Amino acid sequence: MKMKTMDDLFYALLQDVYFAEKQLLKALPKMAKKASNEELSQAFLTHRDQTEGQIERLDKAFEMIDKKPKGKKCDAILGIVKEGEEVIEEAEEDEVLDAGLLAAAQAAEHYEIARYGTLCAWAKQIGKPQIARLLYQTLEEEKETDELLTQIAESSVNQAAKSA
Amino acid sequence: MKMKTMDDLFYALLQDVYFAEKQLLKALPKMAKKASNEELSQAFLTHRDQTEGQIERLDKAFEMIDKKPKGKKCDAILGIVKEGEEVIEEAEEDEVLDAGLLAAAQAAEHYEIARYGTLCAWAKQIGKPQIARLLYQTLEEEKETDELLTQIAESSVNQAAKSA
Repeated sequence: MKMKTMDDLFYALLQDVYFAEKQLLKALPKMAKKASNEELSQAFLTHRDQTEGQIERLDKAFEMIDKKPKGKKCDAILGIVKEGEEVIEEAEEDEVLDAGLLAAAQAAEHYEIARYGTLCAWAKQIGKPQIARLLYQTLEEEKETDELLTQIAESSVNQAAKSA
Repeated sequence: MKMKTMDDLFYALLQDVYFAEKQLLKALPKMAKKASNEELSQAFLTHRDQTEGQIERLDKAFEMIDKKPKGKKCDAILGIVKEGEEVIEEAEEDEVLDAGLLAAAQAAEHYEIARYGTLCAWAKQIGKPQIARLLYQTLEEEKETDELLTQIAESSVNQAAKSA
């Protein structure tokens, strides 16, 4: 796909993030099932539901640039999800697994924080402030999820992993 | 690699980040060469030099847990770097390329922010506050680099990409 304009660049990143969200929609229930800490498992499920709403916002964003929603393979998120799967394979204690899963989820959140930050900035630049406002809501949700995960790590998961 | 304890988990993530930094050390000069915006190109080169110091800190961290420094394949950073390479291949205008490269660099920074945040928290938990303090310096540098990139995007790169 050749990119001549900033509109092309925006459209390509929208597809990248669309693919990423769909991957996370599949990964989060698996992570929730593997997590033994109740609060962590619930946070993964809550974020899974939130991700559905975030995908709907992306659908709207595609519509607002007169394109059909579609994903474009995002190697970054595939790598991040793979690292989470490796933790599931390699961790031999439930509490150690929880700490590793939580960290992997934070890597995914930070990928999304970076990408939605860029999408918001680019949307404004290409004269689509309404898309910027829409995706800014998702950006805030991703930051809140990252902060919630930090709280869960500090309040229980890391201590439990150390005691395992 | 089987992980039974939080120390194993910490050691595995240290190897992941070590691999990631070495990848970025190779990628940043290429990105600097491809960037046409002078300020952006210089930011990539400055961060390349900073990355050398960050690798030295990781060397020390390995030493402080009595391990030899070594990397472990990090699929996340390989994916992020690949996305940057795709932008180089696909962008047909210099200014559009600059915006795409800057965004790819911010994705890399956010990966590192997530991972160093976790390393600092885990280092404290496993009773290595001196490693936490050491890596906290890197965490701050990554955040500063991300903020600098946002400034460059807002002050020149995004505007130029739109006008391309």
